[in-house]
Amino acid sequence: MPVRALWYRRPTLFLLDQRELPSRTVVRRIRTLRATADAIRTMAVRGAPSIGVAAAYGMVLGAREGTYTPDRAAKELRATRPTAFDLFVGIETVRRAWAAGEDPSAAADAYREKVVEECHRIGIAGAPLLRDAHRVLTHCNAGALATVEWGTALAPIRVARDRGAHLFVWVDETRPLLQGARLTAWELGRERIPHAVIADNAAGHYFRTGQVDAVIVGADRIARNGDFANKIGTYEKAVVARENGVPFYVAAPWSTFDAGRANGTDIPVEERAESEVLEFAGKRTAPARSRARNPAFDVTPAKYVTAFVTPQGVVRPRDLARALRTRETK
Amino acid sequence: MPVRALWYRRPTLFLLDQRELPSRTVVRRIRTLRATADAIRTMAVRGAPSIGVAAAYGMVLGAREGTYTPDRAAKELRATRPTAFDLFVGIETVRRAWAAGEDPSAAADAYREKVVEECHRIGIAGAPLLRDAHRVLTHCNAGALATVEWGTALAPIRVARDRGAHLFVWVDETRPLLQGARLTAWELGRERIPHAVIADNAAGHYFRTGQVDAVIVGADRIARNGDFANKIGTYEKAVVARENGVPFYVAAPWSTFDAGRANGTDIPVEERAESEVLEFAGKRTAPARSRARNPAFDVTPAKYVTAFVTPQGVVRPRDLARALRTRETK
Repeated sequence: MPVRALWYRRPTLFLLDQRELPSRTVVRRIRTLRATADAIRTMAVRGAPSIGVAAAYGMVLGAREGTYTPDRAAKELRATRPTAFDLFVGIETVRRAWAAGEDPSAAADAYREKVVEECHRIGIAGAPLLRDAHRVLTHCNAGALATVEWGTALAPIRVARDRGAHLFVWVDETRPLLQGARLTAWELGRERIPHAVIADNAAGHYFRTGQVDAVIVGADRIARNGDFANKIGTYEKAVVARENGVPFYVAAPWSTFDAGRANGTDIPVEERAESEVLEFAGKRTAPARSRARNPAFDVTPAKYVTAFVTPQGVVRPRDLARALRTRETK
Repeated sequence: MPVRALWYRRPTLFLLDQRELPSRTVVRRIRTLRATADAIRTMAVRGAPSIGVAAAYGMVLGAREGTYTPDRAAKELRATRPTAFDLFVGIETVRRAWAAGEDPSAAADAYREKVVEECHRIGIAGAPLLRDAHRVLTHCNAGALATVEWGTALAPIRVARDRGAHLFVWVDETRPLLQGARLTAWELGRERIPHAVIADNAAGHYFRTGQVDAVIVGADRIARNGDFANKIGTYEKAVVARENGVPFYVAAPWSTFDAGRANGTDIPVEERAESEVLEFAGKRTAPARSRARNPAFDVTPAKYVTAFVTPQGVVRPRDLARALRTRETK
């Protein structure tokens, strides 16, 4: 059975709680906008496309509650997390329908369908890139959990595998919250895709010794010139990939592309609690008085990207602005 | 009171158990060669210069036990860990004295003194490099714990601070065993040196945004051409430092230099247990069936090194072979 990160059955949003995986499978039942906002903020649901869809349904729940205006509902959900562009697209899509007197629930359903369908098309577009890449590295989780179904980075891996490719995946554990070790490894394990979890520190060793054929990651926000924000650590992998001549792909649905933003300079980067770094499972690991810094994302300049894998195909960074204009006229 | 990683009072080797820090200060009392070997293998004592000194005293304990020949004692201690060159130098220093009928304990004491004194000289040689580097990044622990006293990477930081420099240290947490978050933060905290612990993934973000002025790390083994092995993740930091024009320094006593080795190609890299990556404090974090890879070190080519900080001063990689010849004639 394929993984589904969330689904809506009036009047309830069901979320697979990603903080509990892989040790427990817990489905949260969410009935209010505020509870949706909390789930996004606390990362019960995470991954840019998934939080976009969750927020779209948060708008639906807000409309049902009867005490919100479309603008107030949108404002509350927008305040949850700053970096992923999909969040704002998902909210705005439903806000517009709601404000126009249309059915918010139909707008959210259509938005979810579009994201899932685009991720499937990403898989089909990206699979040929992995034809000669037997050992693929990915960072964080850009799988079904991050995108409702299919995944972004994992979609081409899934499609390539279904077509008979023998792939092996290096899974960066992705500190501090271990979305690689916990979530990507869980998705790959369910489908019997061979993989090894590595400390984020170990990726460079495998690049340098010729054991990584390609990198594919998701994104949280992509500027018009191809600069993009993604999980902290992505920038280092991109630099080391280029240094070793390894292609670096970024897979994302259209909702991740912030076409109004010329470049990555001012993409807001969320800084999360120090405790994510200083503690582990509630137990302090660092000295009692030590402080931490905990940026959740970094920005990778476009020059490190070999190509973007989009729902319309593989796009080189220099062709991205044009591809976005084409997409926009659809 | 300065940190001391280990000390010997006949007939006991005392080790500060580095697996227990920072939450508990536990001193192990060691009376046999085999217990010394276990302490090295299980990383109760770690850091190339410290394990060299611990192994030197392991030889002393072996000589006292009366059942070992010098060669058998050396063989058993050499088998503990493969990468740090200091281990072999420490063992060989005492083996030679013992085989020549000299006092092994005097040889071990002299070896320890030499390491500590060289680390102090590294601090004096390296401090001027940090004069304009207010934000220094270090990886793993190359402090007193790793070198008995002073440290390698931390020695110039200590000396610069004592001379009035206002330094801030970025502490890579250093997965999988968190020697940065646990040990380096503990050493810096004891001396009130301002620092922040970061996930290893976050270093690149601070490089790219101009918030790292210099990198200084220790080493486990340095070849004649300047290629060097150090804690896994060092290579990535070196690549990202060069990409951002940030100087990258490697500090080490002479016992870390493997002058008979032309380059880093064949430096043996230890692979440790998968559980270090898949579990945390005995609790499984990855899915039950997932596997891991866990190289404990990586090799960084000399081209990424700005300079080595040695007991005889700051040496550019291109001058290293000559400096090693000078040292050898002493």
